[in-house]
Amino acid sequence: MAPDFFEDPDDTRGEIMQATYRALCEHGYADLTIQRIGDHFAKSKSLLYHHYDGKDDLLVDFLAFMLEQFEADVSREKDDDPVEHLLAIVDHVLQADYGDERAEFSASMVELRAQAAHHPAYREQFSRTDQFFHDRLTDVIQQGINQGMFREADPERVAWLLLATFDGARNGRATSDSFDVAAVRAELETYVTETLLVENHP
Amino acid sequence: MAPDFFEDPDDTRGEIMQATYRALCEHGYADLTIQRIGDHFAKSKSLLYHHYDGKDDLLVDFLAFMLEQFEADVSREKDDDPVEHLLAIVDHVLQADYGDERAEFSASMVELRAQAAHHPAYREQFSRTDQFFHDRLTDVIQQGINQGMFREADPERVAWLLLATFDGARNGRATSDSFDVAAVRAELETYVTETLLVENHP
Repeated sequence: MAPDFFEDPDDTRGEIMQATYRALCEHGYADLTIQRIGDHFAKSKSLLYHHYDGKDDLLVDFLAFMLEQFEADVSREKDDDPVEHLLAIVDHVLQADYGDERAEFSASMVELRAQAAHHPAYREQFSRTDQFFHDRLTDVIQQGINQGMFREADPERVAWLLLATFDGARNGRATSDSFDVAAVRAELETYVTETLLVENHP
Repeated sequence: MAPDFFEDPDDTRGEIMQATYRALCEHGYADLTIQRIGDHFAKSKSLLYHHYDGKDDLLVDFLAFMLEQFEADVSREKDDDPVEHLLAIVDHVLQADYGDERAEFSASMVELRAQAAHHPAYREQFSRTDQFFHDRLTDVIQQGINQGMFREADPERVAWLLLATFDGARNGRATSDSFDVAAVRAELETYVTETLLVENHP
């Protein structure tokens, strides 16, 4: 299932982003072309060439678009119980069965991320995305500490550890048949409930 | 500094692997060609075309070669204190300053790993590599449990968690300016010494 923000786009950029999402799921990064994105776009393909200098320019904007959607989602979130919230994030990122579409999209994201190793525009975008998710995780952990649920850990450090683990597990799932995502999830749940949580928490 | 096994190759395959290592550090994956590998190879370039069906075929053998070297290294290792051994692995993988050459090589490895998202031969190779490093980590943790140093954790699960964290941190370092490897390392050391280690360990 596609992330909600690729459903029912309400402007041309949103339609381009939806088409890009669908083309990435179908072709992955290496075989992607503006032409193939155009195959999923109802309006004239010349619009794509007008707005973007090639597929990498479009894909960097695609990453920026997703980050904008994540940022907008935060403001709509209710304040959950921090422990439940953190376990829900672990559950969402490391769920056992991704389904084909999410697996395809996730594999494409691994490929996009690898572009950042030598491509400054991708690198700048992933730097922003990392900072965003890190800050979100830090907030949740800080709330848990403030509410006396989590031990006096360093929330910034714990957040980087969690983010590294999430990225490594997503990468492992997309690129290796031996990699055991379920084991990472189980051990991460143990980490949250035994290391982070104070002992007498209900 | 190159891994030892790229120094002083003792046969043609070793020389090809050394040339591939150097070309990867210089060009990364996307701009790599057999021709550019040949620029670092003292013998005739036709040997490269004779042995390999293109750059991906050569790079998959490069990954296989590295795994063979890692496997050979294990048999030469002495039995360290498991806690020291685990902290030394964390230190090696997550050290603060990689240096330019290791950073370039690590960035190339992130790119090679991303090929495994859609390329079965790469995927098969990384599946083997993951299994190898997972089994090594499992052994160290199991030794620590057997010697009463580590708590009764599930060594297989802990090993997958560590491997995911290592891969995510390596990936983050190579693809993002905001990613904080030092924070991951510090929190992982806390995890080893506070969560894994039994409390009254000296």
